[in-house]
Amino acid sequence: MPEAMNGAESLVRTLVAGGVEVCFTNPGTSEMHFVAALDRVEGMACLLFLFEGGATGAADGYGRMADKPASTLLHLGPGLANGLANLHNARRARSMIVNIVGEHATYHREYDAPLTSDIEALAGTVSAWIRTGTGADAIARDGAEAIAAARTAPGGIATLILPADTAWNPGGGIAPVPAVPERARVSDDAVAEAAAALAAGPALLFLGDRAVRGAGKDIAARIARKTGAKLMAMQANARIDRGADSVPVERLPYPIDQAIAALAPYRRVILVGATRPVGFFAYPGKPSVLTHPEAETLTLARPEEDQIEALKRLSAAVGAPEGLAGTRLPRPALPGSERLEDDAIGQVLGALIPEGAVICDESLTTGRNFFAATHGAAPHSWLQFSGGAIGLGIPLATGAAVACPGRKVVNLQADGSALYTAQALWTQARERLDVVTLIWSNRAYAILRGELANVGAHNPGPKAVGMLSLDDPPVDWVSLARGYGVAAERVETLPAFTDVLRQALSARGPFLIEVVL
Amino acid sequence: MPEAMNGAESLVRTLVAGGVEVCFTNPGTSEMHFVAALDRVEGMACLLFLFEGGATGAADGYGRMADKPASTLLHLGPGLANGLANLHNARRARSMIVNIVGEHATYHREYDAPLTSDIEALAGTVSAWIRTGTGADAIARDGAEAIAAARTAPGGIATLILPADTAWNPGGGIAPVPAVPERARVSDDAVAEAAAALAAGPALLFLGDRAVRGAGKDIAARIARKTGAKLMAMQANARIDRGADSVPVERLPYPIDQAIAALAPYRRVILVGATRPVGFFAYPGKPSVLTHPEAETLTLARPEEDQIEALKRLSAAVGAPEGLAGTRLPRPALPGSERLEDDAIGQVLGALIPEGAVICDESLTTGRNFFAATHGAAPHSWLQFSGGAIGLGIPLATGAAVACPGRKVVNLQADGSALYTAQALWTQARERLDVVTLIWSNRAYAILRGELANVGAHNPGPKAVGMLSLDDPPVDWVSLARGYGVAAERVETLPAFTDVLRQALSARGPFLIEVVL
Repeated sequence: MPEAMNGAESLVRTLVAGGVEVCFTNPGTSEMHFVAALDRVEGMACLLFLFEGGATGAADGYGRMADKPASTLLHLGPGLANGLANLHNARRARSMIVNIVGEHATYHREYDAPLTSDIEALAGTVSAWIRTGTGADAIARDGAEAIAAARTAPGGIATLILPADTAWNPGGGIAPVPAVPERARVSDDAVAEAAAALAAGPALLFLGDRAVRGAGKDIAARIARKTGAKLMAMQANARIDRGADSVPVERLPYPIDQAIAALAPYRRVILVGATRPVGFFAYPGKPSVLTHPEAETLTLARPEEDQIEALKRLSAAVGAPEGLAGTRLPRPALPGSERLEDDAIGQVLGALIPEGAVICDESLTTGRNFFAATHGAAPHSWLQFSGGAIGLGIPLATGAAVACPGRKVVNLQADGSALYTAQALWTQARERLDVVTLIWSNRAYAILRGELANVGAHNPGPKAVGMLSLDDPPVDWVSLARGYGVAAERVETLPAFTDVLRQALSARGPFLIEVVL
Repeated sequence: MPEAMNGAESLVRTLVAGGVEVCFTNPGTSEMHFVAALDRVEGMACLLFLFEGGATGAADGYGRMADKPASTLLHLGPGLANGLANLHNARRARSMIVNIVGEHATYHREYDAPLTSDIEALAGTVSAWIRTGTGADAIARDGAEAIAAARTAPGGIATLILPADTAWNPGGGIAPVPAVPERARVSDDAVAEAAAALAAGPALLFLGDRAVRGAGKDIAARIARKTGAKLMAMQANARIDRGADSVPVERLPYPIDQAIAALAPYRRVILVGATRPVGFFAYPGKPSVLTHPEAETLTLARPEEDQIEALKRLSAAVGAPEGLAGTRLPRPALPGSERLEDDAIGQVLGALIPEGAVICDESLTTGRNFFAATHGAAPHSWLQFSGGAIGLGIPLATGAAVACPGRKVVNLQADGSALYTAQALWTQARERLDVVTLIWSNRAYAILRGELANVGAHNPGPKAVGMLSLDDPPVDWVSLARGYGVAAERVETLPAFTDVLRQALSARGPFLIEVVL
């Protein structure tokens, strides 16, 4: 007699029926029934990570590229805690994730066993929706509602906490996913106000979310051409589709003085999928809000609203013509210089980024010019580190590669940040994922050297300088990558970088290049 | 004219005056003033980690060995999140930690900048005390109260959240640490009830916390000899001082069936610094409480009470004689066999553990017999992985080495667990810490293979088995360690293991041995 479907199997079948095809996991005892159910159900790939931050960052990368949720599977409070930093980034990117966290059996929690902790409190800091399962017969329905919650615009993290007995007791069968509401249409007033602002003088269309994907930028560019407005993207964006065939749009700079200067000319700032530009950090004597003190900020479309449709209506309201004059940029050439410097590296990237690539950018200081240098590169998607929690790049690239098996993934990666979650390289090796990781090995928290001065901590002494230095001992990235089973090479000159990158891009499978700066 | 002392400096000076001599950190922009203040103040060592879980696990190891708090310095919510799993372990070990978490300037939080999150909610899951600073003039007092809170028995995590402006604005000078209350004396009734229970028949003295350090175990052994009671330590203990000169006490086994069997003979269980024995996890059809269903559990001394004084009074109440018959065990000999198996490894450890060593044990399945095999080893301290959040061992050993510069630290380390926080090896290299790490390289989450069956998930399929296997690719620990700047060797035979371990123990500085099982 076949066993009845248990709660775990009912949940896995519900996830698969609801379009959740991948589980990024680092499981433990309380998740064993979910893991076992994966073998009884077709249609759910399961990828193991050595550290939970890899799994959650991969779910973020997958969500950004697939526009649908993957699931995670994490082990109680500490497993969730290890994944929280990248869930924080995913929340800021508004990635859809069905975040499943194992928990003690319902009746066991009161005994305060060693792993017991307040999972809901942890999950509350990153989740758009949270539920703790109460019974195996309802856990499939809980999972179906989690899928709907994750997919509801603007997209978010739905955390389903799964007590072990809701997995092992008899389940209630597959549950249908509730209807997900369409993105809301913006009001006529919002369009009219934006049109009036554009008519009043130099305005800024500040773009984020869906407005920086293909159609959004094209329509915004038509509006700008008609009205004289300037286009600018947020400092950090979940995904920008860009390259030679699309409108080049600069981003708000990260350094606060540059950001204030970039926004200074505009007295009207129109948000389209973007949030108001504020300082990444506070700095003594500098403002939190970065727009000009007299600037008015208005919203055409919030992130959860239909930004493309709003842009179309605004385009019509201002009478922007259809079609766009040729914006095709020349493909960047390889640099003439031989020096391995940031600008030259940007030029190499502009020349070599392959068509259809997915760029996962956690370059920080090294990469400040890479975006500008790659406007004319072959068409690609550019995924940024979005919530300020460093350690996203390697996991993000891993998840993007799972979502896009036919596209080359290139991870532009600061060394200090890479060291938080380098374990995800092992998953790239295990899954033979097509990711090239470029480590900018400056052996420092270079960004903090500038920040020491920016916050007014001048003349740092040896202890402070030591806290920003990673050169004693230098991390040997080639050894580290090989330790995780990923082939790697070190380059110290621009020609070597160009050659090795070209080879890595033409091969398949994971490869890491330590670029010594 | 010298600058006035800012809030950060007033806090650092208060910490140093309050006996906090070490800061384990991974700082960011909002912590730069604290870092800069370290150069203006004598007496605070500052150790950099590449990942926050290293810093918090090191603070745990330091607290267990130094019996006083170190401080941490973490970067906003995501930095705290990365350190939470090991703070969870530290909470279960009741380690004293002054946990300092940077935060946006008070006036900047409302703008919801990318790194903004609910730090107090995160901290609440692990902290005995939490405060968010409100002003630079009061931050030293906040820090002084944090020290007192961390030191208050049974010891705990005091989290001080440090908005950037409370660090950079003018501070209020050094604040005195409030008086810390002595451990409470247990009631006469508690002693009388324990004495009555011991008189009634076979009882178990279930020991934890301070009762498993030197004097505690000796007194408990006298009581046991007089009354016929059995001694047993908790399954996981923050620190046991043990070896040839002290009373051998076994621990409650981890596997639930063995634990139930070990407790079955006793109808009276007397807790001395221990918590009630409950299942680490729930398993279908098995109880949560592991003592015999008819057993009465009573408390002689809670973890926050004076367990040594309580044992002395109980000893007097039962008329146990002073002094103890010779319990000196013979020093274990090296094994005769050549096979690299768990039992033989335990024998090697018993023979070679150097006098005064600090053993940091996260061996899990491989090490189940190591404790029994080392009762007669040279006197040493044994620190266990205490809260069930794997990834503690390497950080714990790092912190123990900082607390005990004259003692050899030996980290017995399961491979799967080591991969969560292996970055702490870099800190061992940077600080030239005297730690030998033994990696039990079985290339699996071996513990979960048993747990699959224990929770009733029988006949696992290839996906489930794959989620427990770390052999494709195998992690190359020698490469990994060298990547972090730690010398390493791989051994595949027992003689090689014995030789390389002997060499590593006789040298100084960090060394890693990958023991291929």
